[in-house]
Amino acid sequence: MSNKVANRRIVLAERPRYIIPTANVFRMTEATMPEARAGQVLIRTTWLGVDSYLYSRLQRDSQFAVPVNIGDVMVGATVGRVEVSNHPDYKAGDIVHGFWGWQDYTVSDGSDIEKVDPEIPRATYMLGALGIPGLGAYAVINELVRVQAGETLAVGNALGGIGQIVSQLAKLKGARVLAAASTTEKCRYAKEHWGVDVCIDRSAKDFLPNAQTEFAKAGVDCYVMLAGGRVLDMALPYFRANARIAVCGMMSTYGLSSLPPGGDRTVLLMTEIMRRRLQIRGLVSTDYVGTPLAAQFRKEMKEYILSGKIKPLEHIVKGLEQAPETMQGLFEGRNFGKAVIHVAD
Amino acid sequence: MSNKVANRRIVLAERPRYIIPTANVFRMTEATMPEARAGQVLIRTTWLGVDSYLYSRLQRDSQFAVPVNIGDVMVGATVGRVEVSNHPDYKAGDIVHGFWGWQDYTVSDGSDIEKVDPEIPRATYMLGALGIPGLGAYAVINELVRVQAGETLAVGNALGGIGQIVSQLAKLKGARVLAAASTTEKCRYAKEHWGVDVCIDRSAKDFLPNAQTEFAKAGVDCYVMLAGGRVLDMALPYFRANARIAVCGMMSTYGLSSLPPGGDRTVLLMTEIMRRRLQIRGLVSTDYVGTPLAAQFRKEMKEYILSGKIKPLEHIVKGLEQAPETMQGLFEGRNFGKAVIHVAD
Repeated sequence: MSNKVANRRIVLAERPRYIIPTANVFRMTEATMPEARAGQVLIRTTWLGVDSYLYSRLQRDSQFAVPVNIGDVMVGATVGRVEVSNHPDYKAGDIVHGFWGWQDYTVSDGSDIEKVDPEIPRATYMLGALGIPGLGAYAVINELVRVQAGETLAVGNALGGIGQIVSQLAKLKGARVLAAASTTEKCRYAKEHWGVDVCIDRSAKDFLPNAQTEFAKAGVDCYVMLAGGRVLDMALPYFRANARIAVCGMMSTYGLSSLPPGGDRTVLLMTEIMRRRLQIRGLVSTDYVGTPLAAQFRKEMKEYILSGKIKPLEHIVKGLEQAPETMQGLFEGRNFGKAVIHVAD
Repeated sequence: MSNKVANRRIVLAERPRYIIPTANVFRMTEATMPEARAGQVLIRTTWLGVDSYLYSRLQRDSQFAVPVNIGDVMVGATVGRVEVSNHPDYKAGDIVHGFWGWQDYTVSDGSDIEKVDPEIPRATYMLGALGIPGLGAYAVINELVRVQAGETLAVGNALGGIGQIVSQLAKLKGARVLAAASTTEKCRYAKEHWGVDVCIDRSAKDFLPNAQTEFAKAGVDCYVMLAGGRVLDMALPYFRANARIAVCGMMSTYGLSSLPPGGDRTVLLMTEIMRRRLQIRGLVSTDYVGTPLAAQFRKEMKEYILSGKIKPLEHIVKGLEQAPETMQGLFEGRNFGKAVIHVAD
């Protein structure tokens, strides 16, 4: 590699001031190509994942995750190809997975990367179904809500990185899945390809009454919160006793600068928690990295994918420079599946 | 017994319209003395327990507990003495425990009563420390929040039926206990007799900033919600990661007819649930009756009481007719300990 090739990097230019992290909080810069020293590898980024949960890292106040500093490379899951290896365990051409963020190249001493299992049909699955979003979905199903056959599980964002795996795992457990998605096409996809029983179109004018009707029909045993509070609030009267709620995302409210108007509904929520013996738990997917659950997840999810029981859906966007716009698109419901950026072949 | 002795009964006269169940929702009536037929016993009520959770039974809409009908005897835990026995397992003079409610006499076929263990120092403990409130507290500590030595547990209503047992059990587990009570005297009692580490006086003008200071000092690992949402809201920024919250009571909001003003804080709560990986669970103490946990509770709590490790505090009021006023008093913080009514010797 020549030093004349620049390393393009997308850095945080300013902290987001709106609910949606508009693309212009990021800036493209060029840095000198990094060099692989003794014991290091140089990696060419080929794919990166864009995930809504990363939005929390853009905020100054992030007590439970390290915030990205202004001027630093945006964080995120990545897949790449080893270009130069000065490390005994790697050779040029190896496909690796890591978290080196939104840039064309990186160097690693091997401690923060892993080789991608060649049996996996697409290396990009390490960014979704077999990566952090899949791990989060697996923890939701097996640890947080523990859905049983015959129960009804409600989940928002049926096509998102977590939502699509939650929906499919719940079907494999024998549950009835009641999902929501932002367009009719997405709903159709979830029903046709994953067997989702009911999918409610968020863009429909009568979305809320429709959702209410569906909640009322079967009751809700498990609720996976990905989008925000409005639907939860409405689902409250339909929760069965001992229902389990996993709070995994607050997309519609991540950057909220003031409280929604009207009275404080916390008191209603608390009353229902008590009366219905609800169990609510918060989830941060990355907590499970390196746990026994993660090992079990890798093994089981790989089998599901190879056997066709889980069918990941990817929304592929070409070009590193498209990452900021794709991030914004997540919050606007523009992606049709787990968003991944194709950086290079 | 002569049929000329009337059975005084306190019945529900109307459904409560205010946050506090004012004494006048009840009415004293007189009924003919019941008679013990073959296989039955006639019981003279000697003690009854007054518990705030019974307030939910006064409301028309009670999806998860049977509402008391207008004109029906008010429900509640009771202790009494067998006066006449036509049942092979009971004899006159036996002290029994049941749930026959606010009345002087009742008959039973034995299926809904049990003999009080004569080793228990006071039969009234069956209404508190060894009854439903104690069972709820035991479930909170051992099932819901699972407090560990060295952790900080925050609990409201330190002297109430559940609160006093939660506080003492938490101390036995080696936790630091941060309590609240409605007067300085109550706080002094909790610290002197039960070793509660910090007790914040709810009547103090600077209660909220005081509570905040105490939360900030140690952080909160476990939170037992008995009174209402105002303090929870304030505790949110001080919850440690993976903190456990048990929702066991909403005294300040049971009969709320409109939402507290200001914006909807549910979104803040949900965000903190996710960021801090909080676990929130609702508890209804009676759910545990007849479970293996209840058997373990009875055994363990009896040992604690006999050895002096748990010191129950009772607020004794004399006279069946005082039950409604005592119920109202619970919501006004007038009782100094678990409220029990002495109906007859």
